[in-house]
Amino acid sequence: MAAGVRVFRGAAAAFSAAARRRALGSLSPGAAAGRGGRESRRAALVAAGALGGVGLWLWRRQAVMAASEEDEEEKVLRQRFMAPPVSGLRELRRRRRELRSRMELLIMETQAEVCRALAALDPGAAFAVDTWERKEGGGGISCVLQDGEVFEKAGVNVSVVFGHLSEDAARQMRSRGKSLKAKDGKLPFCAMGVSSVIHPKNPHVPTMHFNYRYFEIEEADGTKQWWFGGGTDLTPTYLNEEDAVHFHKTLKEACDKHDMKLYPKYKKWCDDYFFIKHRGERRGIGGIFFDDVDSPSKEEVFQFVKSCAKAVVPCYIPIVKRHCHDSFTPEEKLWQQLRRGRYVEFNLVYDRGTKFGLLTPGSRIESILMSLPLTARWEYMHTPPESSKEAEILEVLRNPKDWVH
Amino acid sequence: MAAGVRVFRGAAAAFSAAARRRALGSLSPGAAAGRGGRESRRAALVAAGALGGVGLWLWRRQAVMAASEEDEEEKVLRQRFMAPPVSGLRELRRRRRELRSRMELLIMETQAEVCRALAALDPGAAFAVDTWERKEGGGGISCVLQDGEVFEKAGVNVSVVFGHLSEDAARQMRSRGKSLKAKDGKLPFCAMGVSSVIHPKNPHVPTMHFNYRYFEIEEADGTKQWWFGGGTDLTPTYLNEEDAVHFHKTLKEACDKHDMKLYPKYKKWCDDYFFIKHRGERRGIGGIFFDDVDSPSKEEVFQFVKSCAKAVVPCYIPIVKRHCHDSFTPEEKLWQQLRRGRYVEFNLVYDRGTKFGLLTPGSRIESILMSLPLTARWEYMHTPPESSKEAEILEVLRNPKDWVH
Repeated sequence: MAAGVRVFRGAAAAFSAAARRRALGSLSPGAAAGRGGRESRRAALVAAGALGGVGLWLWRRQAVMAASEEDEEEKVLRQRFMAPPVSGLRELRRRRRELRSRMELLIMETQAEVCRALAALDPGAAFAVDTWERKEGGGGISCVLQDGEVFEKAGVNVSVVFGHLSEDAARQMRSRGKSLKAKDGKLPFCAMGVSSVIHPKNPHVPTMHFNYRYFEIEEADGTKQWWFGGGTDLTPTYLNEEDAVHFHKTLKEACDKHDMKLYPKYKKWCDDYFFIKHRGERRGIGGIFFDDVDSPSKEEVFQFVKSCAKAVVPCYIPIVKRHCHDSFTPEEKLWQQLRRGRYVEFNLVYDRGTKFGLLTPGSRIESILMSLPLTARWEYMHTPPESSKEAEILEVLRNPKDWVH
Repeated sequence: MAAGVRVFRGAAAAFSAAARRRALGSLSPGAAAGRGGRESRRAALVAAGALGGVGLWLWRRQAVMAASEEDEEEKVLRQRFMAPPVSGLRELRRRRRELRSRMELLIMETQAEVCRALAALDPGAAFAVDTWERKEGGGGISCVLQDGEVFEKAGVNVSVVFGHLSEDAARQMRSRGKSLKAKDGKLPFCAMGVSSVIHPKNPHVPTMHFNYRYFEIEEADGTKQWWFGGGTDLTPTYLNEEDAVHFHKTLKEACDKHDMKLYPKYKKWCDDYFFIKHRGERRGIGGIFFDDVDSPSKEEVFQFVKSCAKAVVPCYIPIVKRHCHDSFTPEEKLWQQLRRGRYVEFNLVYDRGTKFGLLTPGSRIESILMSLPLTARWEYMHTPPESSKEAEILEVLRNPKDWVH
């Protein structure tokens, strides 16, 4: 029985032809070839456009499907996503026990959770949802809210890309630079992640960034190398100790559930990574950061990454709620704009992901540079007066503090 | 007879202790050792603060000096500079026939000429003049006008640095990557240049950049390698064909005096160099650019560079005059801010000079990043409508035009 796919337009979300194809199955050529009459079960798309101004999409089994057919994986798929997953429902269903499928669902869920939470705080604004395909394999979903009441620019991206890498490119992807053995010079790979930067309007609400990602590379002898990376970090314009402690404490709790050694290690890694060397200061007051993590086991690292992803909303949203109606002066707004300039400096000069993206043919530039603020400012020789609130945050950016001990 | 050094404070210029030391002689240890009683002739500093709001400094021989003592070199030194030259007057006088002395005077003159011309157009604004020293040898003079009526940010920098380079660093300095033979692994070098970026307020006045530089490296056997680099280029927010033709024609005339082959070659080099690869567009509508030029002879290349430096004011100032009172809409201002964002992308991601500066310990970051605009903007997925004025300039940035044939 052929099932139709219904596509509804939400307030801000528009499903592209690519998204419609995804709803039918996988983008991978193998799966596409297997379409046709065998597709007796298809997902229908129902728009739930009224939810917090976000064009959210519910995945529902069709009514024709018996209740008994519902399994664990279907339950996950019925979660709300911002758009159909890149790998397609059928493909995710087929390989539901594989980690890459579970990770793809996690990043999709995280994207929707964060967008929903942000949209609830900025009811007049809407997320633009773009789905895009990568010619070489895979694609992504970019959700961007711009010039809202609360948020100047908020982007939450998912990307799932696959194909083949040269040995050189594969080595570059691993921060530890491990070499990999290729068959015929090419390594099949898969890389996926959710990545987000939130720049609020009010200078008393900090900027937040998070990113959780997973990589797989298959070597010549068939063994798979895999690793995770990620982190969540905060960039305030002004220091608020209570916020800093809340943010770090929430991250620490997420880490401690898995291993008490993780938070201190990844907190330091974060301070070291987000360092604007030419300024001698960090981009923000840190959080956690890790890369190239492949132990103790795939399952354990995945569970840790899941805890971190689930901590994003409780880390950040209470801080936004607390300050989004704070009054501020033009001078405070100006200082925010100067700090935004430093954010741009870090992202364009140092950020590994941005640099890798800009240099990779076929990257979606608009999704990579979504991390840049709507506006930024550079003043020659700007130095805040001693003992000012501006000097206070600079001091912490120059000498990172321990917030939870 | 001991001569005093008088330092006057101009409206915006303040001479630092370093500048005062420079006025007395050279910063190089050898010359400094030769001070003392022998200094019967010293230059006096006289501020001419009233000239167009710029803190300009006149170098005058002291009245005690007989008119007959005046020679060609003294005439040059009496030109107006923004601050005392980095190498010191006595040192420049001592080695007045050497090209590095003549180049240092040229970049000092160019800095003052351009600052004077800009200040005359923005009478309410003032250039802040900072002199700075580099611990490892040399220093510079940064002149920055910020938030004027006509100019959002205008910076004109001179730097003269010397010391020793590793073989690796020396090779990196040459764009053609020539290797150099060092004695004990170190190569004595000298690098100097004038560099400027002018960002006007009005979106109908284009941004202009120029830079002229000279390098010398001494190899183990005492032979000196030397080369010049430089260029002048224009970045309009909107295309004005008349301005584009005037700008390129003025540059072509400067080049043609030396060799008819230079303009076409350096025009293409400019289009190739200022390419924002990830956007598939150039930073602006070009001009000329050259690097690592060491033929036909030191004297001939210097004369060519001099012609180019002298062409900066006639290239640009008539365009500013023509448009600085044009009316503009908020939409035009917004498009300018988006283009400023692209300017930041080029400078932080691709510009060789900026990247080299940010990575070099002891660089003066504020002078390097003076090239960034006061404000910039990034909108997600901004695409101007077809056939709009915004689409018109994009077309030219994607497909460079030949403006003078």
